[in-house]
Amino acid sequence: MKHVIDPLDLSVEEITELLDVSNDIEKNPKKYSEICKGKKLATLFYEPSTRTRLSFEAAMLNLGGSVLGFSSADSSSAAKGESVADTIRVISCYADICAMRHPKEGAPKVASEYATIPVINAGDGGHQHPTQTLTDLLTIRSLKGRLENLTIGLCGDLKFGRTVHSLIKSLSRYKGIRFVLIAPEELRIPDYIREEVLRAKDIPFVEVEKMEDVMPELDILYMTRVQRERFFNEEDYVRLKDSYILDMNKLKNAKPDMFILHPLPRVNEISTEIDNDPRAAYFRQAQYGVYVRMALILKLLELEA
Amino acid sequence: MKHVIDPLDLSVEEITELLDVSNDIEKNPKKYSEICKGKKLATLFYEPSTRTRLSFEAAMLNLGGSVLGFSSADSSSAAKGESVADTIRVISCYADICAMRHPKEGAPKVASEYATIPVINAGDGGHQHPTQTLTDLLTIRSLKGRLENLTIGLCGDLKFGRTVHSLIKSLSRYKGIRFVLIAPEELRIPDYIREEVLRAKDIPFVEVEKMEDVMPELDILYMTRVQRERFFNEEDYVRLKDSYILDMNKLKNAKPDMFILHPLPRVNEISTEIDNDPRAAYFRQAQYGVYVRMALILKLLELEA
Amino acid sequence: MKHVIDPLDLSVEEITELLDVSNDIEKNPKKYSEICKGKKLATLFYEPSTRTRLSFEAAMLNLGGSVLGFSSADSSSAAKGESVADTIRVISCYADICAMRHPKEGAPKVASEYATIPVINAGDGGHQHPTQTLTDLLTIRSLKGRLENLTIGLCGDLKFGRTVHSLIKSLSRYKGIRFVLIAPEELRIPDYIREEVLRAKDIPFVEVEKMEDVMPELDILYMTRVQRERFFNEEDYVRLKDSYILDMNKLKNAKPDMFILHPLPRVNEISTEIDNDPRAAYFRQAQYGVYVRMALILKLLELEA
Repeated sequence: MKHVIDPLDLSVEEITELLDVSNDIEKNPKKYSEICKGKKLATLFYEPSTRTRLSFEAAMLNLGGSVLGFSSADSSSAAKGESVADTIRVISCYADICAMRHPKEGAPKVASEYATIPVINAGDGGHQHPTQTLTDLLTIRSLKGRLENLTIGLCGDLKFGRTVHSLIKSLSRYKGIRFVLIAPEELRIPDYIREEVLRAKDIPFVEVEKMEDVMPELDILYMTRVQRERFFNEEDYVRLKDSYILDMNKLKNAKPDMFILHPLPRVNEISTEIDNDPRAAYFRQAQYGVYVRMALILKLLELEA
Repeated sequence: MKHVIDPLDLSVEEITELLDVSNDIEKNPKKYSEICKGKKLATLFYEPSTRTRLSFEAAMLNLGGSVLGFSSADSSSAAKGESVADTIRVISCYADICAMRHPKEGAPKVASEYATIPVINAGDGGHQHPTQTLTDLLTIRSLKGRLENLTIGLCGDLKFGRTVHSLIKSLSRYKGIRFVLIAPEELRIPDYIREEVLRAKDIPFVEVEKMEDVMPELDILYMTRVQRERFFNEEDYVRLKDSYILDMNKLKNAKPDMFILHPLPRVNEISTEIDNDPRAAYFRQAQYGVYVRMALILKLLELEA
Repeated sequence: MKHVIDPLDLSVEEITELLDVSNDIEKNPKKYSEICKGKKLATLFYEPSTRTRLSFEAAMLNLGGSVLGFSSADSSSAAKGESVADTIRVISCYADICAMRHPKEGAPKVASEYATIPVINAGDGGHQHPTQTLTDLLTIRSLKGRLENLTIGLCGDLKFGRTVHSLIKSLSRYKGIRFVLIAPEELRIPDYIREEVLRAKDIPFVEVEKMEDVMPELDILYMTRVQRERFFNEEDYVRLKDSYILDMNKLKNAKPDMFILHPLPRVNEISTEIDNDPRAAYFRQAQYGVYVRMALILKLLELEA
């Protein structure tokens, strides 16, 4: 039984295979439209995450399967004090595969230890969110044609953003990757990423406070939200926030084939004036998220088109 | 790309076509049972409306399609501050068509401007609810055989009831329609309907306070709820409320082939003693609501049986 | 039109037939996988019960049908004051069969009087929960090979536990059943069960406070939760609670072919050390719950494989 709890649960070879299948799905959706007929996905969302949940549901429906589940803990047995271990053993009787979102770090890992069906971590607290990472990788590879030899800018909240940490760890497995880390002092990447991932693997990176200077170097600009509540004082927030809002002016020195990604939802960190720029890839990213979840469901159910 | 935001977005010809398809669906449901295979409807309900949501879902399932979505804003990304424009662009990656209910007037219109899939307004605040209007039109035409030359009684809250306003505007496009508007002083139809629709188009109408006197004239009696909170004082409410409760006694002078409609949910404005009277059509109306939504989904997806 | 509101709505012959179909489903799931194609189940859950709802949904999906509904009253029209009678008449236009969970006793019964589709009571307050009883019967018969000549231990809260009452009434219809009722003084079975069921039908039973002494006699041990709030004082609760927690030590004198059942969710009344013991049948019970709901849906829709 194979589960996906951490993005690094998948080897580079497995990821390549998943992205290949994803791209084939993109080209030939019909080929996959009945492959999960009779199979059921359980979406166990102990906290709401509409986008992620609907992306999984769309993926399973696109494969001809069906979906059951819950979208928040209020409507689940968790309220009655049932353990995740018990819930997943029961859900294993109801479905063929499950996607679990949980506010508590490690919950999907525990579930995977008791499940008799594959468990996909759909986000556990600030911890892991492997299908977001797979989405990011598929988007980058599809748009740039490769996952090697790229300069990746990561901008915004690099301290708390789990998607950023996972993406750094995952991209660190490819050759020729260079990171440009754009964040305010308060929201720089955590030491363990800097030391145990980047320096330990001798991966080139720079850390800067403003995106304008580094814009011309970037192949990918991965934006994240800078939340007011992350700052110690309002003054710092007001002083800094505009530096982390991408607009046409900041974009003017970017390469014409750079792409802008964002895990969404966006609040105001990317000006809507950019939405129609060909470099804006964040909505295409949502589409890639469906393809890669389709590929992952197939892999875990050991089905092939 | 065609959307349905306002009942008047559809021409009289398009409505005729929709009602014809609806009646064909009623007669030959099997013919339509696989036509949307592989298609997905997103039900985006930013406020709960079980009846409308389930009617849309039943419609899509009857067509062999599938459904994903959310039933209230708590479980949606709206809580994280995402704009309707962004949400619909993402949903466009997940589904082939969507039905949106929103407490804010105009939200489905905004969605339609950014969507790459057809958007159906499933009710926006007190504003529009086009599939309710289509349901009403289908019910009337199916039961009376025509949408022309009818005397239509509208009873209850004619001031705030959006279904009533839409129905007046839509029926005003047919020949020989006469309206009998039955409402307390406080809840008479708004001036803009009286002036810009009825008088401007020279449509005969009368306004009365009590339904008994006009009952014998009516071909259709469209009941709506009179809500206590609409009245300035309790005294007026108590004095008037019984006048707007339809019972067997008030019905005794009605034509034998008059039909009673109600958008539901009913609270007490139609006595349950009437439910088994052959003129009570409000539950059949719910069934027609499914047929017309099926026809509308087909039209917007450009599918034919 | 046949409904299932009370477990005793089904005759012994009908139950035998249902359990036979359930066992056939278990052996030949493929045979049943398209039988409900085009049919829709409405899950009307006026209070959350994830396990029961998902079991019904899995059942309908396994039969090739589809599902619509709501998972709590907030998202239903009940909040707008609609009666159950009106709701079910509308739902009858949307679905082919429905499962209703309601906090108010008797609500599914009322629904069945107005429905034009079969209604299954999925639990009404502390009253009835017939599919749980069917699940229990199927589990016992599947594991023990019979529903006759068994010594059934029922342990925990025998006063308020509706599953226990229904199970006693249902098993009382079989020959050679003997009950061992294990409960604290405060939570003994109600008089009406003792007098009107057990004594009236001359069914042998004993009532004890501790499970250790009776363990060797049991063919089935049906555990339920002892809730703190059922006790008049904390002292009694603390003194007694450990007596109603099943652990390996208490199990040591049990027959090797005894089976442990539990309606779930479990909180701590069965130690997790027992989960891997071959006698622990409570998770298999969840699986049987899906099979028996499949069989019941088929029966009520008058469909055969």
